[in-house]
Amino acid sequence: MFLTRVFVLFFSLKVPMATLVDIAVSAAINLLSALIFLLAFAILRIQPFNDRVYFPKWYLKGLRSSASHSGAFVRRVVNLDFRSYIRFLNWMPEALKMPEPELIDHAGLDSAVYLRIYLMGLKIFVPIAFLAWAVLVPVNYTNDTLKIAQLVSNVTASDIDKLSISNVPLKSQRFWTHIVMAYAFTFWTCRVLLKEYEKVASMRLQFLSAEGRRPDQFTVLVRNVPPDPDETVSELVEHFFLVNHPHHYLTHQVVCNANKLASLVKKKKSKKNWRDYYQLKNDRNPNQRPLKKVLLNIQSDISQVAVASYWFPWALGRKKVDVIDHHTSEIEKLSEEIEEERERVLKDPKSIMPAAFVSFKTRWGAAVCAQTQQSRNPTLWLTEWAPEPRDVYWENLAIPYMSLSVRRLIIGVVFFFLTIFFMIPIASVQALASIEGIEKRAPFLKPVIEIKFIKSVIQGFLPGIALKLFLIFLPTILMIMSKFEGFLSISSLERRSATRYYIFLIINVFFGSILTGAAFEQLNSFIKQSANEIPKTIGVAVPLKATFFITYIMVDGWAGIAGEVLMLKPLILYHLKNMFLVKTEKDREEAMDPGSLGFNTGEPRIQLYFLLGLVYATVTPILLPFIIIFFAFAYVVFRHQIINVYNQEYESGAAFWPDVHGRVITALVISQLALLGLMSTKEAAQSAPFLIALPVLTIWFHRFCQGRHKSAFVKYPLQEAMMKDTLERARDPNFNLKPYLQDAYIHPVFKGGDDDDEDDDLSKKLESDSVLVPTKRQSRKNTPAPSRISKASSPSLSEVVKDGDP
Amino acid sequence: MFLTRVFVLFFSLKVPMATLVDIAVSAAINLLSALIFLLAFAILRIQPFNDRVYFPKWYLKGLRSSASHSGAFVRRVVNLDFRSYIRFLNWMPEALKMPEPELIDHAGLDSAVYLRIYLMGLKIFVPIAFLAWAVLVPVNYTNDTLKIAQLVSNVTASDIDKLSISNVPLKSQRFWTHIVMAYAFTFWTCRVLLKEYEKVASMRLQFLSAEGRRPDQFTVLVRNVPPDPDETVSELVEHFFLVNHPHHYLTHQVVCNANKLASLVKKKKSKKNWRDYYQLKNDRNPNQRPLKKVLLNIQSDISQVAVASYWFPWALGRKKVDVIDHHTSEIEKLSEEIEEERERVLKDPKSIMPAAFVSFKTRWGAAVCAQTQQSRNPTLWLTEWAPEPRDVYWENLAIPYMSLSVRRLIIGVVFFFLTIFFMIPIASVQALASIEGIEKRAPFLKPVIEIKFIKSVIQGFLPGIALKLFLIFLPTILMIMSKFEGFLSISSLERRSATRYYIFLIINVFFGSILTGAAFEQLNSFIKQSANEIPKTIGVAVPLKATFFITYIMVDGWAGIAGEVLMLKPLILYHLKNMFLVKTEKDREEAMDPGSLGFNTGEPRIQLYFLLGLVYATVTPILLPFIIIFFAFAYVVFRHQIINVYNQEYESGAAFWPDVHGRVITALVISQLALLGLMSTKEAAQSAPFLIALPVLTIWFHRFCQGRHKSAFVKYPLQEAMMKDTLERARDPNFNLKPYLQDAYIHPVFKGGDDDDEDDDLSKKLESDSVLVPTKRQSRKNTPAPSRISKASSPSLSEVVKDGDP
Repeated sequence: MFLTRVFVLFFSLKVPMATLVDIAVSAAINLLSALIFLLAFAILRIQPFNDRVYFPKWYLKGLRSSASHSGAFVRRVVNLDFRSYIRFLNWMPEALKMPEPELIDHAGLDSAVYLRIYLMGLKIFVPIAFLAWAVLVPVNYTNDTLKIAQLVSNVTASDIDKLSISNVPLKSQRFWTHIVMAYAFTFWTCRVLLKEYEKVASMRLQFLSAEGRRPDQFTVLVRNVPPDPDETVSELVEHFFLVNHPHHYLTHQVVCNANKLASLVKKKKSKKNWRDYYQLKNDRNPNQRPLKKVLLNIQSDISQVAVASYWFPWALGRKKVDVIDHHTSEIEKLSEEIEEERERVLKDPKSIMPAAFVSFKTRWGAAVCAQTQQSRNPTLWLTEWAPEPRDVYWENLAIPYMSLSVRRLIIGVVFFFLTIFFMIPIASVQALASIEGIEKRAPFLKPVIEIKFIKSVIQGFLPGIALKLFLIFLPTILMIMSKFEGFLSISSLERRSATRYYIFLIINVFFGSILTGAAFEQLNSFIKQSANEIPKTIGVAVPLKATFFITYIMVDGWAGIAGEVLMLKPLILYHLKNMFLVKTEKDREEAMDPGSLGFNTGEPRIQLYFLLGLVYATVTPILLPFIIIFFAFAYVVFRHQIINVYNQEYESGAAFWPDVHGRVITALVISQLALLGLMSTKEAAQSAPFLIALPVLTIWFHRFCQGRHKSAFVKYPLQEAMMKDTLERARDPNFNLKPYLQDAYIHPVFKGGDDDDEDDDLSKKLESDSVLVPTKRQSRKNTPAPSRISKASSPSLSEVVKDGDP
Repeated sequence: MFLTRVFVLFFSLKVPMATLVDIAVSAAINLLSALIFLLAFAILRIQPFNDRVYFPKWYLKGLRSSASHSGAFVRRVVNLDFRSYIRFLNWMPEALKMPEPELIDHAGLDSAVYLRIYLMGLKIFVPIAFLAWAVLVPVNYTNDTLKIAQLVSNVTASDIDKLSISNVPLKSQRFWTHIVMAYAFTFWTCRVLLKEYEKVASMRLQFLSAEGRRPDQFTVLVRNVPPDPDETVSELVEHFFLVNHPHHYLTHQVVCNANKLASLVKKKKSKKNWRDYYQLKNDRNPNQRPLKKVLLNIQSDISQVAVASYWFPWALGRKKVDVIDHHTSEIEKLSEEIEEERERVLKDPKSIMPAAFVSFKTRWGAAVCAQTQQSRNPTLWLTEWAPEPRDVYWENLAIPYMSLSVRRLIIGVVFFFLTIFFMIPIASVQALASIEGIEKRAPFLKPVIEIKFIKSVIQGFLPGIALKLFLIFLPTILMIMSKFEGFLSISSLERRSATRYYIFLIINVFFGSILTGAAFEQLNSFIKQSANEIPKTIGVAVPLKATFFITYIMVDGWAGIAGEVLMLKPLILYHLKNMFLVKTEKDREEAMDPGSLGFNTGEPRIQLYFLLGLVYATVTPILLPFIIIFFAFAYVVFRHQIINVYNQEYESGAAFWPDVHGRVITALVISQLALLGLMSTKEAAQSAPFLIALPVLTIWFHRFCQGRHKSAFVKYPLQEAMMKDTLERARDPNFNLKPYLQDAYIHPVFKGGDDDDEDDDLSKKLESDSVLVPTKRQSRKNTPAPSRISKASSPSLSEVVKDGDP
């Protein structure tokens, strides 16, 4: 009965609107796919041969080592302990077990604070959902507006709309409830935001003060050193800082343009790797010396061969050579080239960039230098905190001020056009993906589409997928734009990309979906609408699109996150590499690419859920549980990933939090404006003005928070610096800082020396220097360990290794 | 013939629009009044008894002294040298003669840079006017659009419109000229702006580095010292800075809440003055000891009399007492009270505010402390450069951070309502002041109004006056708002008020006038217009209001400036005070209130002319000469006033320039948007998009300039500080800084000691400490001096004094 009624409704729809059945179908599909992903994950993760894909973090930390050298082959590849397959969701409580301080030790503050974004989502939306369901749903449901409208005209509505604000009649006094709720939700969101800001700021300061000695604490990056005819950059920097910071200056390192050198070193490394591989092969099978057809090396014999090869390419000599010898000789040649290039870079004044890393005797001195203006001309001698050595984006260090501001303009314009014109393909694809669109464009498909199930799939699934596909390539484009804009550290590049991505998502996904679906034909007229009318149009469209966003949440949020934990792409890539490319143990390590959190794409996506939750909290509270499930599920999944998989490239000390805060505020203001617009169309004229104060108060709250807490993320208080200096002087009075800092900020290619093993050592040393401190608790050393409770279910690595041992 | 034609036009007008005749009448009236003002000024200024009104600056600098003690009475009062009346405009070249460096010495950098705003107006508008007249006027004039429109329908236009863009037919290719010109004007304006920014920034840095030793160079204002149960504020401050700036901290002064003390001191001073007056009277006429009926002093005899006076007020005893004795005894009582209050303030911990002026051993130390964050909590230990001692606004020093941000919110909301609802009275008065308005509301006046001359007066004069009257009381309100908002120095109070005043002027005067006159009836519908339509509406209205703004410029700009130089209000006030209040020589000095530039009102008014000039440059170029005359005339007048009259209360080192720059940019963007709107209504569809790039480029240019130059106005580069420190150490190695800084930032009431003469000495000392350096050139010592050229015409003070001498 119910279903038939719903279907009658469905057919009479004018605006394509999904009903409860569509949502049920979509939910079933998505839950099923999520479950399949999770099952697949549960099976794949406990297979030893996938170990490096699902637990790379522990390998990187050196707490787990490859089990491939010994043991029965089958056992090494497949897990035969069937008990472990039973409790396939076991990783979830395990992921939640590690306490936050240990998580910070384990994965860094960035990751720990990133997880707090999901937690914050739960903190905001769980109470809001309770309140909305307790108050707004009854208020909305006990009206007959939609039923009457249905009877009178042919207007139809889904059951979801019965629970939404659409069911409240015009001019009703009940709208006061919604206004009071809007205030309550805003107040609660702001409260949570303020608490979180405070907490994160104090976590950051504690993290910074608990850190050991690190080069970036003492170092300031100086850019735009003015050219001087008499002195080199290095001399100039030394003189300038000796004069202007006489008691604090210690040493400095100039920045070289070593991009060519870097590529040579990379080439040599690859060659060396090949030689090792053949050497290994040869050692195993000493009789068959590997040979290889090689082109005559044009580079080395260029004078003799070049002309010939140009005119008679077919005449180019090929000869069979001993591969090992060949590689060895090439490596030698490359070594020479590298040596030349290295000397050229160090000697040639043209390769010295007008930038330097200046180190100070104390943290106090560095804090002072980073926060003050040095010279009369504010575009010269620009100082700022040096990023961590591994966070530096070397290519951008030499961009002069004037060029920077032109680049910013160009990127601004490009981004504007990208955002505006990206909307057109999305809109057309979505229109095409609707039932009407398909029927119109491909009438022969009509009989197929009219099948109930397929129709529901199309209705509930395709628009989300279409959107999703469009968004895959965007982050790369945005990252390239940020790089062009000239940011100096990877963390700031990612933050900038995230901001751009968020703007893009709001304009194209949120507004785009709201307005194209409901008012695509009116888009043209919409552009010409009054500023007064825009919130109204949005307000009216918001309740109509609730079902679309519910499906979006399920596709992107539920199934997407389950796909995240399965890591299909890295899994396949790893095994492909392992099969075809991996030659040495080192290669295997490199094939295991754990990736990182991807702040530039992940965070804006979370923010979209904040936006949806806040906008629909007062309008269609039925959406809130979907959001809450997303946040909870994503929290568990990402906690697991952070503990076991991701390897952060850098540690910015949660410098991204002000952005996160600001975006939630943006979402809050958008939700208030949309509600205001909706109210004014509901002819609740006497109550609507009470909503105007909300955005004003929210923006004021934002400014208050920024003033109160933002500087913790931008500046380094002198008191802290002085405290740490004093403590350290007392603890370690004879420490010689200069050699410690001398080479901290050398371009990565100079670090390696000739030997690439050294290279690795150094980068490892750097890593251990910075944040990765081995966990202290014995029981955690081999997470996911068989904890006391679930000992039987999940085989720990140690067991696997023991099993593998003869 | 011409006049009749114009009048026929005039009568057929639907929208009230002034014609050439109206403008001519208005110009005549305003020129006449300006001339009368100038004549009056020429006569009044050379009368010795007005000397203190027109040349107070020289008295304040001690280069001129009162001539009232000796000489023939008539000669002391009236200038009988008739030659000096002839060349009544002689002060103009004299005002222009003083070179800029000397002007900076004489009146401070603020004043000198303020004059540059007028000069910048000339630099921008003279070339633009030439270009516009050479290109746009012919292009506009050689069309027949308006003539045809006149013939076809009854549409009418004034002759001014013939020269404006209105005369170009729809869809004409001639609009390309206007677009090219818009680019040219924007380019030229930006060029001038950039040059000026550079120049002013370098002037500021040079001024700062050329200054002698000043307490504010070594001092930082610390606010929000956290409360501590164990230590006093003073101890806390000392310990904090000894720990965190160990090598640089020198001394500090806490801030006391001495508002009550200040009022007591003021009271005592007045009493003392009265006693001196009676003493003087008595000395001249020793026989008649002055008596006075006084109420029994309730304060002193309170225990006996209070009850009686409460129940039987008529029974209060009055007795005749010797006035001098009475005052002397009262002064003694007040002295005791002051002493008590002073001790209370110094001892009572409640009167110590949680703020302090912290002084450092070097400028470098102070620069570091002012630019860095001190403590973990960014709302505690807030440091900023201390303003000059005389620039400090003492009342606001103790406002805590939280309260500050609430105050900012409140003032923001209040200002919003003030700006929006101020529009209504202006609009109604202007409607009333139009011909139609008067005829409608007072039909009996019709015969009078219809008289040609009166009609022109009403048309050309009243709207300007109505506006002007409304604006007189606004600055006071805005200043009170800024004070409430909690700014710490008078200069920043004035800057903030200026910003608010400018916003107010743009919204209410510019947009208000444009839209009320032409579209007042449509105002209601206008609010509901699309964001797209607003520039169009403005663009269409702009050319129609050209004549209104021309009269506005003449009334406010020409006659107003002439009134400024006459200084009627201070003149009358001075003579009234002199007649009734002045008792002693000191009183006379105080009665001579030279006033100051009044940045908070003056600068936004100039900016309105920039806005008008830029908006009308492409639309109605005939307006430009009026603007140029304003800038030239105002430049001369204010140069004269700055040299001879104004006495700046503070010296901020041209800290206002970024605001000035930003406002010209705002004007530029508004002009571009208005032109864009106008073009799109002209159906010049293919050319309008070319204008969109203009505002983008302009805003980018603004950001570039701010990045390039703003920090010169906000921060103090360490290089400069170090240079000055080194120089001073070499020059004066034994100078003891501590006593010099010890008392620099004591609340003004503590400075005076018991004796108010000391008070004066100190304030004078302070003044001479800061910037007022006596001019070095002998010939200037008695400006307006008889220079070699105009020796005969203007009697210098020395001549007057000599004449007065027996």
